[in-house]
Amino acid sequence: MPRPRSEKARVSVLDVMRAALSAGGYEAVTIEGLASQAGVSKQTIYRWWPSKAAILGEALLSGGLPGGDVTVPFTVDLGADLRAWFSAMSVALGDSEGVAIARALIVVTASDPALGLALNETLAAPIREWVLGRIALAVSAGQVRADADAGAIADQLIAMASYAALLGRPLGEERVEATVSVLLRGIATPAS
Amino acid sequence: MPRPRSEKARVSVLDVMRAALSAGGYEAVTIEGLASQAGVSKQTIYRWWPSKAAILGEALLSGGLPGGDVTVPFTVDLGADLRAWFSAMSVALGDSEGVAIARALIVVTASDPALGLALNETLAAPIREWVLGRIALAVSAGQVRADADAGAIADQLIAMASYAALLGRPLGEERVEATVSVLLRGIATPAS
Repeated sequence: MPRPRSEKARVSVLDVMRAALSAGGYEAVTIEGLASQAGVSKQTIYRWWPSKAAILGEALLSGGLPGGDVTVPFTVDLGADLRAWFSAMSVALGDSEGVAIARALIVVTASDPALGLALNETLAAPIREWVLGRIALAVSAGQVRADADAGAIADQLIAMASYAALLGRPLGEERVEATVSVLLRGIATPAS
Repeated sequence: MPRPRSEKARVSVLDVMRAALSAGGYEAVTIEGLASQAGVSKQTIYRWWPSKAAILGEALLSGGLPGGDVTVPFTVDLGADLRAWFSAMSVALGDSEGVAIARALIVVTASDPALGLALNETLAAPIREWVLGRIALAVSAGQVRADADAGAIADQLIAMASYAALLGRPLGEERVEATVSVLLRGIATPAS
């Protein structure tokens, strides 16, 4: 069954928003420009979304997220998994589209805190869930201490990746290695 | 010797910018509003600064920084020092003025990356310097491993504090404790 016309137009607006972000940054995006490129009227856009930030929010959540296609590894080696994910995330956030989207998300968070918090939670949730699951596995394998605070580790990885994206300064291999090493030693099973 | 009139007016614009941030947020600040409240013309403001972001930058660097008055402790107890600083910074970033200033800084960074990076470096430099000095002391006291990566620890503390400020969600005591504990164990002298 083909999608109804209005659904196609909605998707088109979201696609145009994502493309516009990489091209000129969030500040440069206007409702007028989105409408003209997506072939809908400004009135239609305002009927669907209350604000530019709301369009961005839906565009971010419906695809093209920086790091959204980063595989979350689940091998037997916790250190290798954390390094692999953190490196891949850093690369994803470091390309020009990743930087543009991360900055747009940050601007929305700074200007519409409630929407920004909700978006950040939605984006961070799968990362947090993966870290919690991966560390639980390592605990049951006796590789990390039973009281390891997986939530604190997840927060630190997310904060580091977000801050690097804000500054447009991807984490190099050396920084990834140093960060993961400190965290791994921090939750290692105490030597007996 | 009294300050020249133009210097007083400059300082007044910067004061008005800081006050306006806490009152309505960076987005709501206009050059017109700044000029009218500081009692100078818009032309004068544009002669002194190229943009609203540049005024914010100077306002941030010349005083009223979130966390700028947080004491950097230097006792014999590394853990206590890190906890004390991190808690105080979290409180400073969590009050409404701290959140407003941190968000403004973040918006500037997202919209004018070069200025933002320079501001962030300037603000982070004393923190980084303190962490490096404090950890060097702990290394020489044999409390932490000789190869402890103090730069990585500094980056993690700065990233956590910045991300919490962005989300307007101050780090609670529990999160501060969990973060510092993991990092401390991560750089502890290996049990011999």
